[in-house]
Amino acid sequence: MLYITGHTNPDTDSICSAIVLSYFMDGAPARLGKLNPETEFILKRFGIMEPELIKSAKGKELILVDHAEKSQSLEDLDEGKLIGIIDHHKVGMTTSEPILFISKPLGSTATVISELYFNNMMPYIGGKNKELKPDLAGLLLSAIISDTVLFKSPTTTETDKQLAEKLAKIANIDDINKYGMELLKAKSSVGKMSPEEIISLDYKNFDFNGKKIGIGQVEVIDVSEVEAKKQHIYKALEEKFKENYDLILFLITDIMKEGSEVLVVGDNKAFEKAFNTTVENNSTFLEGVMSRKKQVVPPLEKYYIK
Amino acid sequence: MLYITGHTNPDTDSICSAIVLSYFMDGAPARLGKLNPETEFILKRFGIMEPELIKSAKGKELILVDHAEKSQSLEDLDEGKLIGIIDHHKVGMTTSEPILFISKPLGSTATVISELYFNNMMPYIGGKNKELKPDLAGLLLSAIISDTVLFKSPTTTETDKQLAEKLAKIANIDDINKYGMELLKAKSSVGKMSPEEIISLDYKNFDFNGKKIGIGQVEVIDVSEVEAKKQHIYKALEEKFKENYDLILFLITDIMKEGSEVLVVGDNKAFEKAFNTTVENNSTFLEGVMSRKKQVVPPLEKYYIK
Repeated sequence: MLYITGHTNPDTDSICSAIVLSYFMDGAPARLGKLNPETEFILKRFGIMEPELIKSAKGKELILVDHAEKSQSLEDLDEGKLIGIIDHHKVGMTTSEPILFISKPLGSTATVISELYFNNMMPYIGGKNKELKPDLAGLLLSAIISDTVLFKSPTTTETDKQLAEKLAKIANIDDINKYGMELLKAKSSVGKMSPEEIISLDYKNFDFNGKKIGIGQVEVIDVSEVEAKKQHIYKALEEKFKENYDLILFLITDIMKEGSEVLVVGDNKAFEKAFNTTVENNSTFLEGVMSRKKQVVPPLEKYYIK
Repeated sequence: MLYITGHTNPDTDSICSAIVLSYFMDGAPARLGKLNPETEFILKRFGIMEPELIKSAKGKELILVDHAEKSQSLEDLDEGKLIGIIDHHKVGMTTSEPILFISKPLGSTATVISELYFNNMMPYIGGKNKELKPDLAGLLLSAIISDTVLFKSPTTTETDKQLAEKLAKIANIDDINKYGMELLKAKSSVGKMSPEEIISLDYKNFDFNGKKIGIGQVEVIDVSEVEAKKQHIYKALEEKFKENYDLILFLITDIMKEGSEVLVVGDNKAFEKAFNTTVENNSTFLEGVMSRKKQVVPPLEKYYIK
């Protein structure tokens, strides 16, 4: 049985990409954790069921979407049969056998999948030549908007914008910006969440040269809700740090200001050197930094691997 | 400046894939070492110049073909800007940023490139929509034949056979089998070579969990020429072993018998356990084993990584 799954602490791109690709590949979409409020909002909006929660790779054929990093996947990934990876991140893992690997430096995995669809390339990756239905087009559009923060993130490409237009037409969404702001508000509504829930909304582990690094992020339109909980969030990060971490970063990204406050737990010096900044009161503001993938992971990795 | 390069100790697939992809991507084909006699024969046959020898990645944009393994690439690969990888091997490396990555479990990288061409997917990977000329079709066909050992290797897929037919038509080659036997003879003509030359014809390094493993291979129609030099080849392997290796394997693949004699230097026990065989007089015969990638690397890697 073929399962298609995104990463742990799934975000909208992971969930929507898994659902849409499953439709073309005749597989089952899966998730490795709880949906975040934004993704819940989107699935409800388009009337799509949430994917099945899986906890083991055993006995499964697997296609990974939206990650190429073992530390972000099923713990027993090697017990399954890895068939392919469809992604837009850096290559963060090796495999023991040749697989299907399609990755492009685009704004979201949903963009990669949309491009495969519009170029009639589904058969190329072993999928079927089927029509993209309006609800599924809506999921892909939502994932592009979410991952590019409504085209504001520096990871955004022309391809993301062009394919979003095409998808919006199929999904019958007249005003992408208006729909995008709705989404971002759903993403931002952290008012009722506990600090632990806020941290795990979009949290990823990395292994840099044997060092265990965690990087979480929350993207908000109005920073005040998170601001009010900052001390509690920091305490929760310190708690998490005990799980053998070397460094934990938590990005509070202000979508309007286009920058991120970074809470730092652990190896402050590494962070300061990698980003040429200074940490005061466990925190610093990085102007223009909105993308973990493009602006946070590469300098950190360079620092640790040298 | 964009360079497209295959692996060290380049084989026909590495060289021909780099040349053909350069044509579509407006890059310069490069090589990381001396051509083998088979590749020389092919380039002469189709009147194509050999690629430029490069020794450093510094200041270069790079697309890697036919390998995804740092130990098989430029030593200072990280000094260059890696744009993409087009391959058919296991994923053997990580990157620090998102790149274009296209890999499929097909018989050769030339098959992957041919499939991109015949599906009009060159623009998808950033290339131009140009016509494949007969000489370049001849290179791709030759690389498929070489890597699949005229469709006898277990890595061979239906796609390899079908695209070879299409390429043969463009290249004006009426009888693929007849042309294939010519090629394999050119590949097999080791009569005048020194043991060191024979070893380096198709030799690859691997890093399994910190262990340094070398695996060389020669594929012959008539095993007698190599057989006569076996003792000298073994001595040369022992010499090479001093370069801090844990294990060196050398496969003398008998194309007609469809199996390989394996010369083993170093960690005999690892080899015996990984392949459930016994080594006598530094050698063993593995029935049906023709592919390093599919039949030798995976059991070894499994052994070392467990």
